[in-house]
Amino acid sequence: MNAQETAPATGGAATGDAQSGRAAILRAARRAFAFRPYAEVTLRGIAADAGVSASLIVKHFATKEKLFNTVADFGPDADRLFAVPPEELGRHMVLTVVRSRREQQGDPLLRVVFSLGNDDERTLLRARFDQQITARLSALLTGRDRALRAELIVGQLLGLGATLSLHRTGANARATPERLADLYAPALQRLVTG
Amino acid sequence: MNAQETAPATGGAATGDAQSGRAAILRAARRAFAFRPYAEVTLRGIAADAGVSASLIVKHFATKEKLFNTVADFGPDADRLFAVPPEELGRHMVLTVVRSRREQQGDPLLRVVFSLGNDDERTLLRARFDQQITARLSALLTGRDRALRAELIVGQLLGLGATLSLHRTGANARATPERLADLYAPALQRLVTG
Repeated sequence: MNAQETAPATGGAATGDAQSGRAAILRAARRAFAFRPYAEVTLRGIAADAGVSASLIVKHFATKEKLFNTVADFGPDADRLFAVPPEELGRHMVLTVVRSRREQQGDPLLRVVFSLGNDDERTLLRARFDQQITARLSALLTGRDRALRAELIVGQLLGLGATLSLHRTGANARATPERLADLYAPALQRLVTG
Repeated sequence: MNAQETAPATGGAATGDAQSGRAAILRAARRAFAFRPYAEVTLRGIAADAGVSASLIVKHFATKEKLFNTVADFGPDADRLFAVPPEELGRHMVLTVVRSRREQQGDPLLRVVFSLGNDDERTLLRARFDQQITARLSALLTGRDRALRAELIVGQLLGLGATLSLHRTGANARATPERLADLYAPALQRLVTG
């Protein structure tokens, strides 16, 4: 699942391994908590999916509840996605989603879609998304219909992540991130600018 | 799935009930087969979710396998989405997705996203999507990078459906379909035109 990240980093194998173990756990946890009711998720299952021991999860995240809270926190994803001024946001967000897929085999936002339609603990995941992604984005915009435009921008970002994942070996996989941004970012920027 | 088609056929209330029962079954089946492994899905579970009897499912769809095949068939969705000439496609597709959500509480495409990352029978759902939606759309386009543009258009459609579902009570819910099309369709049309 994460060949790329497990590949030897500099800085000593220990650090690299710890980081890649943590990343693998988070990827597996995102899937587990988005797809299944909280009560059905086990650290053992996440460990098996991540290819690590359950004790490594405890070492990194202490408890299942804390791991869930990390998965439900979109703050760090928002920090990366919204790290540039509004006039550069469209292109930056596209490149961030594409690179996240290519370099970390993951998507900063897509897990919220997998949580749709479930009224259990996953409601929290959607509430956090709403606050940390959609409302924060809306606050960055100016002009008419900010909230509506933010919702549509979020749609374009979720859709980009979905299509990259769906067409994993498609034409997009052979295109450069810059080419994808050329095609996809103008629409986003248009909604950002208003 | 098809309130539009269900709506007032001739034949009175009995027909209407039968059609709404069928639509409810299909909605529940789409969820079940996208979210869970085929082996775990039961007609009884779908019936409970749809609020109908299991025998009504058998009456409409005969077997679990046939019901799965109906869910995995994106042909009718493609017929509706791609029903206009390329120069009108952007706006038509946006309106189709918005109206599908508002009038039928469903989305023509989104179930494929819920099937992501599962290498069981749901692979078939993705393969059909690829063929009936993405490849068919690509064949409708002309110019450079048709396959890539088709993948990105699909992304925008999936994203629109995702954000409408996610922000069910958001600003989009108070906007007219025409306003949503004004904001979202130009980007789609740009990728259609190339």
